[in-house]
Amino acid sequence: MRLTRYFLPTLKETPAEAQIASHRYMLRAGMVRQEAAGIYSWLPLGHAVLKKIEQIVREEQDRAGWVEMLMPTIQPADLWRKSGRYDDYGKEMLRITDRHDRDMLYGPTNEEMITDIFRAASVTYRELPKYLYHIQWKFRDEVRPRFGVMRGREFLMKDAYSFDVSKEAARHTYNRQFLAYLRSFQRMGLTAVPMRAESGPIGGDMSHEFLILAETGESQVYFDRAYLEMDWMASGVDYDDVGGLQKAIDGFTANYAATDEMHDEAAFAAVPEARRVAGRGIEVGHIFYFGTKYSEPMGASVQGPDGKPVPLEMGSYGIGVSRLVGGIIEASHDERGIVWPEPVAPFKVGLVNLKQGDTAVDAACEQAYAQLGNAGVEVLYNDEAERAGAKFAVMDLIGLPWQLVVGPKGLAAGVVELKNRKTGQAEEMTLEAAIARLSA
Amino acid sequence: MRLTRYFLPTLKETPAEAQIASHRYMLRAGMVRQEAAGIYSWLPLGHAVLKKIEQIVREEQDRAGWVEMLMPTIQPADLWRKSGRYDDYGKEMLRITDRHDRDMLYGPTNEEMITDIFRAASVTYRELPKYLYHIQWKFRDEVRPRFGVMRGREFLMKDAYSFDVSKEAARHTYNRQFLAYLRSFQRMGLTAVPMRAESGPIGGDMSHEFLILAETGESQVYFDRAYLEMDWMASGVDYDDVGGLQKAIDGFTANYAATDEMHDEAAFAAVPEARRVAGRGIEVGHIFYFGTKYSEPMGASVQGPDGKPVPLEMGSYGIGVSRLVGGIIEASHDERGIVWPEPVAPFKVGLVNLKQGDTAVDAACEQAYAQLGNAGVEVLYNDEAERAGAKFAVMDLIGLPWQLVVGPKGLAAGVVELKNRKTGQAEEMTLEAAIARLSA
Repeated sequence: MRLTRYFLPTLKETPAEAQIASHRYMLRAGMVRQEAAGIYSWLPLGHAVLKKIEQIVREEQDRAGWVEMLMPTIQPADLWRKSGRYDDYGKEMLRITDRHDRDMLYGPTNEEMITDIFRAASVTYRELPKYLYHIQWKFRDEVRPRFGVMRGREFLMKDAYSFDVSKEAARHTYNRQFLAYLRSFQRMGLTAVPMRAESGPIGGDMSHEFLILAETGESQVYFDRAYLEMDWMASGVDYDDVGGLQKAIDGFTANYAATDEMHDEAAFAAVPEARRVAGRGIEVGHIFYFGTKYSEPMGASVQGPDGKPVPLEMGSYGIGVSRLVGGIIEASHDERGIVWPEPVAPFKVGLVNLKQGDTAVDAACEQAYAQLGNAGVEVLYNDEAERAGAKFAVMDLIGLPWQLVVGPKGLAAGVVELKNRKTGQAEEMTLEAAIARLSA
Repeated sequence: MRLTRYFLPTLKETPAEAQIASHRYMLRAGMVRQEAAGIYSWLPLGHAVLKKIEQIVREEQDRAGWVEMLMPTIQPADLWRKSGRYDDYGKEMLRITDRHDRDMLYGPTNEEMITDIFRAASVTYRELPKYLYHIQWKFRDEVRPRFGVMRGREFLMKDAYSFDVSKEAARHTYNRQFLAYLRSFQRMGLTAVPMRAESGPIGGDMSHEFLILAETGESQVYFDRAYLEMDWMASGVDYDDVGGLQKAIDGFTANYAATDEMHDEAAFAAVPEARRVAGRGIEVGHIFYFGTKYSEPMGASVQGPDGKPVPLEMGSYGIGVSRLVGGIIEASHDERGIVWPEPVAPFKVGLVNLKQGDTAVDAACEQAYAQLGNAGVEVLYNDEAERAGAKFAVMDLIGLPWQLVVGPKGLAAGVVELKNRKTGQAEEMTLEAAIARLSA
């Protein structure tokens, strides 16, 4: 992408309302723009990151056996009256009356609707389990939205649901999502720690939240250092292997990990001192097994082997997709700007032309842009007629993993500069070598 | 995808409310489920088609030079008060009051918001043109939603916007979208005819709508047969070639084409009789050039070469993504069900196991499923323990382009059957030959 054709309205000043790093940098880097309290437009740079995160979540849900669908944002209130949650939700639910005076609402989550869809499908026990998910915008009318996309009102969530015939089967299903979450966050370059959680308003008796570590995190967390050294991708566990998966999850959860609310000083003290870690965390995912909490009141059952109806055993599994954009920045930034982990970076490479209009420099940049594009490498080419200092400041701010810097002096000496945003290390090499390195 | 792991709640009976083919077949094939009047859940099969269409639209917008972003569904009412459309829209606009009693609305379109985003970005004339689009859910509170997703209340739309410094530049921009639309619809396997249109409530003085031909279409259309023979993909026009693109568009629009409202009997009569076509059409896209209609009242201008502010010349360009799912079915179905054009089919191949549990048949199906998957071919494998007749009926209903039928008799003779859903032609060949044909 050429910057002259892109839309990147960066800000020189930090807006006064932004209290945390991710909010400041997302506004300054032209990633988002606030349209109303807690409601954001995702400008091209922010949208690109959102799509990268969404795609990783999608691929890992698919791999774990879930099937994608899409429920609407607007729901009829009657569904929520059946489950009993219409009144519970209070003012956080955005209630709407349509032109025919019917009570509607903007979905804050989808347990009711998916249960109703499943009820209507008249599935038999032989067809279970069934696993469904969607990635859709939700709305929660927070009284005081803040911290940018970390606590917005309109937000993008992946919510998955499962339907099982028994508690045992539901536990295996829960374990599948457990592993899928660890894989998803690791692929995004994050260290996520699973912590036993209160199940809260959704109900049920098995629940974990997943927190990523960041100094600016909202929650105090305590855990065993072992979590920092685990490699979920390498675990090689087969999702269909019931015993093997259970064993892996038992291993993952044998170590101490808790948020403030669930913290047990005595248990933490039993962890060898060198392995105790206390820090800050940001919740980015939450999984629940809640049994028949919705299936019973909503009449969602299957015909069991004996012909009698069995209420469905259900779980739900959420990932805050838009919140992760902010969460990743909280976990990965410095004083100059964002430092994107490569798998979620909006572009892999920022190409900096130090002297726009210089024939040799322009030609070298065009060559790099074309060849990297052909190799499938995403490049943002800063082809504007701007001074070098301003170009470097923007590149550091938007945090692309690599900067490829082409200038007249270097070219005269046969070299360009390849700089790593995270380490700050810069290396001189020929243009061909730099292109080869980035395309590898 | 194995059907036993999928969620395909097909219906035997046609729901009474469905008056047109696409609505009937989408409900019967388990593609969608109505959650409230004009509001649908997209079940996995419907969602897969929606994503295919969305991706074609995205690729062609990108190719034409547009940059993707995403605006929220909920908008502040004040934006619409500035443009003067808050009152114009009437009851079709879903108006919402949040917990702090602020007037909000569910966006029916985004001219106001994009204009405001652009105004705030303080772009100079040197940076123009700028092209932005998003693919987002919209809401129009139709008094009588009907025809399934063809006229829903919550619907998915691609809306693109453009910002130019002059009328001449804006015309070229308009031509870019014109070609992008023709390419998009052709890639979906549709014959779309561009027709001069009234610009309607959006305003402006250059506008075309794109209609696809279907016997069940809502509009009467009259056009020159020449449109049926044009190949937009082969036109080889470069989007950046101002003169070449204008010439191509002039060529495209030289022939007669009009909907009922714009029909000119005398002009149509001047078309040689053999080339006159009258039929029915479905509107699937609409492009507008509306100049400064929004930029003037909303104060969106650029600093021109002489330092004086110039109001932006704007256009907007919509494609009804969710509506197209229904439109394609209207244009392509028979008495047994849907007939998907291959580029938008939810799966390319339906694999039919005629005797689940038979060792040889199961093994052959597993081989086909694995090899096709490795070749990147999307397969829906009907691995349920059901009788052959029911499996064929479902495959015909859901309309996958190819059916690969594996049974014990054929296998004993060394063959499987490969059937084309559209032509009905079936051919016997070895399993290897069928896999090679489908993977080609």
